[in-house]
Amino acid sequence: MNDNIYDQHLDAAEANYQALSPLSYLQRAAFVYPHRAAVIHGDVRRNWAEIYRRCKQLASALRKRGIGKGDTVSLMAPNLPEHFEAHFGVPMCGAVLNSINTRLDAPVVAFILQHAETKLLIVDREMSAVVKKALHMLAKPPVVVDIDDPAFDGGELLGALNYEQLLAEGDEDDAWSGPANEWDAITLNYTSGTTGDPKGVVYHHRGAYLNAASNALSWGMTADATYLWTLPMFHCNGWCFPWTMAAIGGASVCLRHVRGEDIVQLIVAEKVDHLCGAPIVLSLIAGVDESLRAGLDHSVKVMTAGAPPPPSVLEKMEAINFDVTHVYGLTETYGPCVVCCWKDEWQDLSVGERARLKARQGVQVPMQEGMMVADPESLQPVEQDGETIGEIFLRGNIVMKGYLKNPSTTDASFAGGWLHTGDLAVWHEDGYVEIKDRSKDIIISGGENISSIEVEETLFRHPDIEDAAVVAKPDDKWGEIPCAFIKLVEGVQVDEQEIIAYCRQNMAHFKAPKQVIFATLPRTSTGKVQKFKLRQWAKDGAADPEDVSG
Amino acid sequence: MNDNIYDQHLDAAEANYQALSPLSYLQRAAFVYPHRAAVIHGDVRRNWAEIYRRCKQLASALRKRGIGKGDTVSLMAPNLPEHFEAHFGVPMCGAVLNSINTRLDAPVVAFILQHAETKLLIVDREMSAVVKKALHMLAKPPVVVDIDDPAFDGGELLGALNYEQLLAEGDEDDAWSGPANEWDAITLNYTSGTTGDPKGVVYHHRGAYLNAASNALSWGMTADATYLWTLPMFHCNGWCFPWTMAAIGGASVCLRHVRGEDIVQLIVAEKVDHLCGAPIVLSLIAGVDESLRAGLDHSVKVMTAGAPPPPSVLEKMEAINFDVTHVYGLTETYGPCVVCCWKDEWQDLSVGERARLKARQGVQVPMQEGMMVADPESLQPVEQDGETIGEIFLRGNIVMKGYLKNPSTTDASFAGGWLHTGDLAVWHEDGYVEIKDRSKDIIISGGENISSIEVEETLFRHPDIEDAAVVAKPDDKWGEIPCAFIKLVEGVQVDEQEIIAYCRQNMAHFKAPKQVIFATLPRTSTGKVQKFKLRQWAKDGAADPEDVSG
Repeated sequence: MNDNIYDQHLDAAEANYQALSPLSYLQRAAFVYPHRAAVIHGDVRRNWAEIYRRCKQLASALRKRGIGKGDTVSLMAPNLPEHFEAHFGVPMCGAVLNSINTRLDAPVVAFILQHAETKLLIVDREMSAVVKKALHMLAKPPVVVDIDDPAFDGGELLGALNYEQLLAEGDEDDAWSGPANEWDAITLNYTSGTTGDPKGVVYHHRGAYLNAASNALSWGMTADATYLWTLPMFHCNGWCFPWTMAAIGGASVCLRHVRGEDIVQLIVAEKVDHLCGAPIVLSLIAGVDESLRAGLDHSVKVMTAGAPPPPSVLEKMEAINFDVTHVYGLTETYGPCVVCCWKDEWQDLSVGERARLKARQGVQVPMQEGMMVADPESLQPVEQDGETIGEIFLRGNIVMKGYLKNPSTTDASFAGGWLHTGDLAVWHEDGYVEIKDRSKDIIISGGENISSIEVEETLFRHPDIEDAAVVAKPDDKWGEIPCAFIKLVEGVQVDEQEIIAYCRQNMAHFKAPKQVIFATLPRTSTGKVQKFKLRQWAKDGAADPEDVSG
Repeated sequence: MNDNIYDQHLDAAEANYQALSPLSYLQRAAFVYPHRAAVIHGDVRRNWAEIYRRCKQLASALRKRGIGKGDTVSLMAPNLPEHFEAHFGVPMCGAVLNSINTRLDAPVVAFILQHAETKLLIVDREMSAVVKKALHMLAKPPVVVDIDDPAFDGGELLGALNYEQLLAEGDEDDAWSGPANEWDAITLNYTSGTTGDPKGVVYHHRGAYLNAASNALSWGMTADATYLWTLPMFHCNGWCFPWTMAAIGGASVCLRHVRGEDIVQLIVAEKVDHLCGAPIVLSLIAGVDESLRAGLDHSVKVMTAGAPPPPSVLEKMEAINFDVTHVYGLTETYGPCVVCCWKDEWQDLSVGERARLKARQGVQVPMQEGMMVADPESLQPVEQDGETIGEIFLRGNIVMKGYLKNPSTTDASFAGGWLHTGDLAVWHEDGYVEIKDRSKDIIISGGENISSIEVEETLFRHPDIEDAAVVAKPDDKWGEIPCAFIKLVEGVQVDEQEIIAYCRQNMAHFKAPKQVIFATLPRTSTGKVQKFKLRQWAKDGAADPEDVSG
């Protein structure tokens, strides 16, 4: 018998234990802030009481159609109120929400619907052409429910009913309950890898609950926050921000298209004070005509990931009172789980120095337990010297449940008790990580590691270069050599030798590209350069740039 | 076999699951903010790296002395750095921290040390007289370690070694680990009940982790927060704020004695922006001479519990830029788990109206799942009409593990799946609760419930009354009648009949006291009126007021 006095008659009971779930946040927001704005979309303005009612209806309607635990409900739509509601209504019936990247093409969408065994698909008219094609590819297509947004013209209705009709089938008084187990799945997000079939990343209620809170803690968000949806909700469930907004009881401003003028207009009109997005969102805002920023007299907090914000953009953003936080994460970590925590003592540095510090990915967020930069094989942490390159490893409660129906990849990515990110970084003396490359993008030439990102950064500083990517090309003598793909600014003329000479002047000679190919770069639907295509192109020496940009 | 695709090969692993524990917060604070001030006490100023190092030393030293899982380390001290460190160092060795109310007398302290099976006791010189007596009452006294604060004169050293010597026995490089199970006990807090032996409330790592985060979420605290320790750390582990400060990486300013001038001086000198405390702390601050507030030009957030802040105090606090939040909780709920969330739309109301709204206890905090006002027997929720009285029930993850070695009381307090608070309240239409009485303090006269708090509030508005308490007195005709105990302002003369007449003019006649006794009220060490003594006094009709104030 255990003689620990603290283990005797002190078990979990109904009064003192409840599975962690972000659904609790919705229930509380509706209770505490029933009349406060929750979701705003054009003329549509719903408070938390209404959102909760509609989510209960959605859950009830899904249950009536036989959907429940273990089932997948997919959704393909821009950042609309229905998309927000699905983050609650779907798991409230026990099912798993699969929000699909709206930029994917029909074969990939078909693959996802089949792999996820989707029972019901909610789709916006704007995505109808792709979805229609995808549905034709399926032997057993799911039930289709249309979002019929009056604020949008175009596309077609594909389903037997629309979203409002589905809600009407539900009864808001139907009882619902949170998950029996906080480890139960809540959502499924397919990674848009640069190669191969997408992998289905499964999130659970516990992680979603914790990351939602961690977002608010990182950012010091309070109930009066107004959040603009510039980050796609299909992207790691909008970094878990639908649940964060419920946790604090703040307002979400929807946005169908990410356009600079619309963004600024909504920031002014709705007094938006928080938004997230890729660096392109910052550039769009910075690029809006000054006259449109009239009335923008409050400060706005911005979280950005994907690439470090360049100094020029940072400077412009600061000038208009935007406070930028750089974050880093993966689909596998519910979005950002590393944040470049800003320190007061950095505030007085020059803009260049601040940008250099801000370009670093940072440290683990409050609720992520472990982060390290380590040798990919031995998992021995590297020196915190800002020079030694290793792989970023993460662990803790903000790490996915695993890949759906893919145990070998799940095991491989968790090998050694850490999530292998595949991102190569240095670890600075102050504990901040700074990404240098994707592990498969490193170039090993004559035994020396060359960071393709470093070469690209040098190329980007050349005034005549509009776009650039560098990959490894097999080489008999060196093993690999850096091969640069470059798109020039329209109208200029620069040749291969000039580019190489420029690089040799600006970096270690061994790092300079030994070959330059002029082409338009092939990118994924989320804007990532498809380096596997470039590597193929470099290796094969194909003649036609169209072969790689198609 | 379970055919739920989301349950297959998606189990918890080292990479994606870690027991929730506030010890993670310390580790992260030391990693992210090593050079930022963590603890300030007079000339002592330690950053997070130092605090972490010292906590590791403490854990190591305790382990070397054979203390570990299932063991209790008690501590009796004011709000000193050592007290803060013990909140981490003790659980880091697997043991449970028992922080003892510094106002208790020797027999109660002896009872606690015996009941908790304390292996080691850390004690400050200021508490040495009481502790010395208590130790003499024990057959097997624990190892005693003295806190020898150079900033304090008086008392004596009781142990074989002091705290710094204990630390020196430890090795900061000794490995430590968080709890294997987040349900493991982290601390033990004895309730200072108004009657009977104190009960040992056990907290676990999961609840401490969540409430620490919930505090920061409720208050929108960020890393630049500076917190003044006006609330005793022995009180529900300072409402979990040692862990909150680690979660955000903020600074804690220690305070041995709660004195108005010291508080204001530290607020100015250290730019304190957050503090907690009983209403007396607000009165102390409001009462400080204006000249001492020179330089106090920033706003300060204050959390208060125990009694609603009166309008006059609120008005004074607002005038000097203090933003008061009213909260409610029990030792059993890790401190406050109900908060009077403030709404923008209330800001323009009159000060009286604002005080009335702020006097309500409020709604559950972000991480507490359930709250209701219900019938104590049937557990049926009462109407949200602001009139029907019921008992407050709470449930969720911010509820104790249970009472130590007291299964029957644990079961009784969790009966029906809810924590029974014993507090009687009305539930307002907007979901906010407002306490009317402790259940044992309600008076049932002629079948009508009379809230003793309501009668007391009426008495307190009489200009000649300094202190007042109302209890039930058995009565043949009415069952019970309200009996008032009153202390008059010095030098005034008012008789029983005048008091009764005043009450009848200002409230329903049946609620007015039928008897008035003039006396100094007996209070517990934490300032609660000992109503059981007053009830005895009312029943027995004892002649000497000293019988009740002793």
